[in-house]
Amino acid sequence: MSLEQLSSNKVFDGQLIKYKFKSAALGGLDAQFNLFLPANALAGTKVPLLTYLSGLTCTEDNAAQKGNFLGPAAKEGIAILFPDTSPRGAGIEGETDSWDFGVGAGFYLNATNPKWAKHYNMLTHVTLELPQVIEAASLPIDLTRQSIFGHSMGGHGALTLYLSSVLGGVKQYRSCSAFAPIANPTNCPWGQKAFSGYLQGGIEEAKEKYDATELIKKLGKEPVHILVDYGTADNFYKNGQLLPENFLKAARDTGYDEVQVRVRSQDGYDHSYYFMSTFGADHVHFHANFLKA
Amino acid sequence: MSLEQLSSNKVFDGQLIKYKFKSAALGGLDAQFNLFLPANALAGTKVPLLTYLSGLTCTEDNAAQKGNFLGPAAKEGIAILFPDTSPRGAGIEGETDSWDFGVGAGFYLNATNPKWAKHYNMLTHVTLELPQVIEAASLPIDLTRQSIFGHSMGGHGALTLYLSSVLGGVKQYRSCSAFAPIANPTNCPWGQKAFSGYLQGGIEEAKEKYDATELIKKLGKEPVHILVDYGTADNFYKNGQLLPENFLKAARDTGYDEVQVRVRSQDGYDHSYYFMSTFGADHVHFHANFLKA
Repeated sequence: MSLEQLSSNKVFDGQLIKYKFKSAALGGLDAQFNLFLPANALAGTKVPLLTYLSGLTCTEDNAAQKGNFLGPAAKEGIAILFPDTSPRGAGIEGETDSWDFGVGAGFYLNATNPKWAKHYNMLTHVTLELPQVIEAASLPIDLTRQSIFGHSMGGHGALTLYLSSVLGGVKQYRSCSAFAPIANPTNCPWGQKAFSGYLQGGIEEAKEKYDATELIKKLGKEPVHILVDYGTADNFYKNGQLLPENFLKAARDTGYDEVQVRVRSQDGYDHSYYFMSTFGADHVHFHANFLKA
Repeated sequence: MSLEQLSSNKVFDGQLIKYKFKSAALGGLDAQFNLFLPANALAGTKVPLLTYLSGLTCTEDNAAQKGNFLGPAAKEGIAILFPDTSPRGAGIEGETDSWDFGVGAGFYLNATNPKWAKHYNMLTHVTLELPQVIEAASLPIDLTRQSIFGHSMGGHGALTLYLSSVLGGVKQYRSCSAFAPIANPTNCPWGQKAFSGYLQGGIEEAKEKYDATELIKKLGKEPVHILVDYGTADNFYKNGQLLPENFLKAARDTGYDEVQVRVRSQDGYDHSYYFMSTFGADHVHFHANFLKA
């Protein structure tokens, strides 16, 4: 798992570094990620890690360039990890036919359908392999302080990885936030297509493991720290791909109040990076509350 | 010159609107631009206009997405105009052969070589046509309060358009700033290639009209307000494409002090949007001092 540094750009007194390595979780394919290290980390301090999961069609670059996260993270002294959204170059038949399935659309799960199971394991890649790689490379990261956020498919990823880690008693992440997440994927076309393809158990398997609205119902009194923003002019929201109301209702039914699970409807905002950049600083500061506590 | 609205995205409580129109200055071709209107403009207040000129290969989109200007402009209540970097679709032989000449590389001049003169008139497009179009459409902009900035080729554009307007006594712009500008283009390969192609009078014509280092020497005691940032890890700087020291020396020789012409060397930064996003807020606030005076 030796890391190759592909590039490094100074930004907000820190460095955004792009790395490549051979990913065991992704079946031996080359995987890339970006890591933003703030100035205090470059000076040797171990800093908290905020993982950002991107949406459909994105790579590790889009949000690093357009999310408006790096300035706020520099101020807070927090590192941000930007993984890719799927394996690249697996060569599986049909993997590049759709923009919402296969390449660029890994859905942050571990595939159980044998056709995809060797390579499409973004869950293990994000939660276990990347932290291991970071640790093995002695990067200045304190892995006992992690949080996670994401957009759209990556909002789904952030919520499900966070809730699963709370449910499993692992508590890998201290807090979770999402922009326009696919919040109830077993009830929307994007999720149904992905789960039917990647999972041998299809939708039923996904209800157990990969649906934020289902997962939060299984929680009892475990404290959670979740912030969700979505825009009312988001066409994917209007077309029923996101369903944040379902997630909100499940959270309230489970007994979580608006301090523990805050879901904000943002008037007039759409699904784009313009929406995200507007609330990017807000989300970074939300996580800083827990990462620096 | 009727404006067609192609899209609108809410961002930082304002709107980023993309327009298209038939451009007389560009020989009747369709031209596009983005305009960021802050919330106070949407509510009916006429706001100042800051024009941003992009660098080689860019369109009207890149800096709107990656420059980190919109949040600061929203705070200041300033509109930002993002023009394109050249005509599109002129169909002139050879215009798409290079990334640093022709399409995406208009250099903010009016071509005098007959081959290019019908279409390649970004100077008139930016300084006269776009303000006319904005006024004709009754957009909430106060054109008596304008400033200009840009990056690389666009930094060259910002400096030359600003200095020319001061020299001509027009004073269209109250202040000027630039990131990594091509500051002495008659002495660098990019400028020499562009001027030899676009201008019948070649480099000599460019020295008269389109070289910031030459233009500032012609000024006497006219007050100017100029801020320039460049990075020491910028490969184009290291390869002699930018030459900010030449501009700085000409400014000092002319008698301008560091309040009127401030040129900052930023340690370790490169030519990318990561550099620009770091100092984007700084530049917007610099212009706000004059636009809101």
